[in-house]
Amino acid sequence: MTAIKNYIQEKRSMFESYMLERVETLLAPDTLKESMAYSLKAGGKRIRPMLLFAALETYGKPVEKGLDTACALEMIHTYSLIHDDLPAMDDDDLRRGKPTNHKVFGEATAILSGDALLTYAFELIASSTNHSPEQSVKLIQMLASAAGPEGMVGGQMADMEGEQKVLTLPELEYIHLHKTGRLLVFSVMAGAYIGGADERDTELLEKYARHIGLAFQIRDDILDIEGTEEEIGKPVGSDEFNEKSTYPSLLTMTGAKEKLADELNQAHDALNALSRPAPLLESFANLIAERTA
Amino acid sequence: MTAIKNYIQEKRSMFESYMLERVETLLAPDTLKESMAYSLKAGGKRIRPMLLFAALETYGKPVEKGLDTACALEMIHTYSLIHDDLPAMDDDDLRRGKPTNHKVFGEATAILSGDALLTYAFELIASSTNHSPEQSVKLIQMLASAAGPEGMVGGQMADMEGEQKVLTLPELEYIHLHKTGRLLVFSVMAGAYIGGADERDTELLEKYARHIGLAFQIRDDILDIEGTEEEIGKPVGSDEFNEKSTYPSLLTMTGAKEKLADELNQAHDALNALSRPAPLLESFANLIAERTA
Repeated sequence: MTAIKNYIQEKRSMFESYMLERVETLLAPDTLKESMAYSLKAGGKRIRPMLLFAALETYGKPVEKGLDTACALEMIHTYSLIHDDLPAMDDDDLRRGKPTNHKVFGEATAILSGDALLTYAFELIASSTNHSPEQSVKLIQMLASAAGPEGMVGGQMADMEGEQKVLTLPELEYIHLHKTGRLLVFSVMAGAYIGGADERDTELLEKYARHIGLAFQIRDDILDIEGTEEEIGKPVGSDEFNEKSTYPSLLTMTGAKEKLADELNQAHDALNALSRPAPLLESFANLIAERTA
Repeated sequence: MTAIKNYIQEKRSMFESYMLERVETLLAPDTLKESMAYSLKAGGKRIRPMLLFAALETYGKPVEKGLDTACALEMIHTYSLIHDDLPAMDDDDLRRGKPTNHKVFGEATAILSGDALLTYAFELIASSTNHSPEQSVKLIQMLASAAGPEGMVGGQMADMEGEQKVLTLPELEYIHLHKTGRLLVFSVMAGAYIGGADERDTELLEKYARHIGLAFQIRDDILDIEGTEEEIGKPVGSDEFNEKSTYPSLLTMTGAKEKLADELNQAHDALNALSRPAPLLESFANLIAERTA
């Protein structure tokens, strides 16, 4: 596990400097830039960019070829957190232990900096020198589809409509596959696409990404019950308190753990069938299974 | 003026059906689609798509070549209105005499349907069969730049920060050139680009678009004082009531009218220097000068 952690650390700091520079050099009002940078800096594990890089390296391509797309991806993930935290949405005051964007900059600026990050993400790919025009168009189409009404925003809408009602397992799965799944799948697909993976490998990697996305979510639900407040950064049991449908609530804890193991097995099966070894992607799947935060 | 009005009417209804179908066929939660369609249907004059079509026809290209880009443009304009109307922003209950999006669907859905329209706009251009990949990338880059932190969102941020303080004329002009100007300029530039205008014509058309954009805004400020409530759809004198800096407040009414005439003259001068006649674009400039609503 040390190799993957070193890998992540090294790539992460390079990636973060590059991304922040993209915002600092914008010709835009200072408050807007500060608000955008505040949430981009708030950190997190940068799982999406790291997955993109890992897929890219599986096909022997340098990480630099995916830098602009990884930035765009992280900006879209970040905008979605800023808007989700708004009083009209989840009304959260804290995210990863820090005040949420609207708590620091006010609601209006938080809405606008989310809009700015979302819009700028597409400009970054469109003006990138990493890709041919064909590649840029394809990446933008894939990313917009993953993030838009048929993807992440649709999942967020379904999640909101499903709150405080008991969901069926297919309804819960629809929400996760869209709200968080589509962007995770894009991370891997973008790396595979830029890396030049063939059709068969691309299908296997899509499978892998869907399964680790669900595994991630199941692990989240389990940690909400079995983790410590210190580990997960929010009160233990908040899903139950909010009467949220979760994997443990629908399947029992034993059933949820079985499903987690099953999703991870399927992710590994997909990787094993690839045309080449993918040790970094293997390690990511294991990290998700073992994470405590 | 009848020719241009007939032109607008005919193109507008074709354009509106096409745009609404793009939303109706989405695989997304119904409420989200209804909220998106509600604001797209709320209408307005569709000035931006019409300017794009007019520029395109100036270069002898069929309107169909610009349909997807015009849809994207109108979706981005519409998302900006939905977010601007939110309680945290301008807190408006009515737009064009109808309840605003959040009044009908609630704030959370209004935020999400704005996000969905913005994201889907880029997907529409990226998946359009109207353009070569080179063209699509260029159009996306131009649109994202016009709509993002260095464009419309930046202008909206500056407008918010400038509220209830007396602005200088350069500050007021910065706001208008960004908040509304950049998207109007994109409308004409996109038509010119798809139409294949040469470099000299492109520069002239950019000038034209900037001047009619400012003229539009000055006329708006004048109408707020001299119009009737019926014509402008909101109480007369609301800018003064809100202590907003406007062209009449900074330049006197006479000065504002002189500046309006000057902007229009410069717009016409730019058109007169074009390599070809542009009767549709001429008529648009005149419509703006004479509009009463």
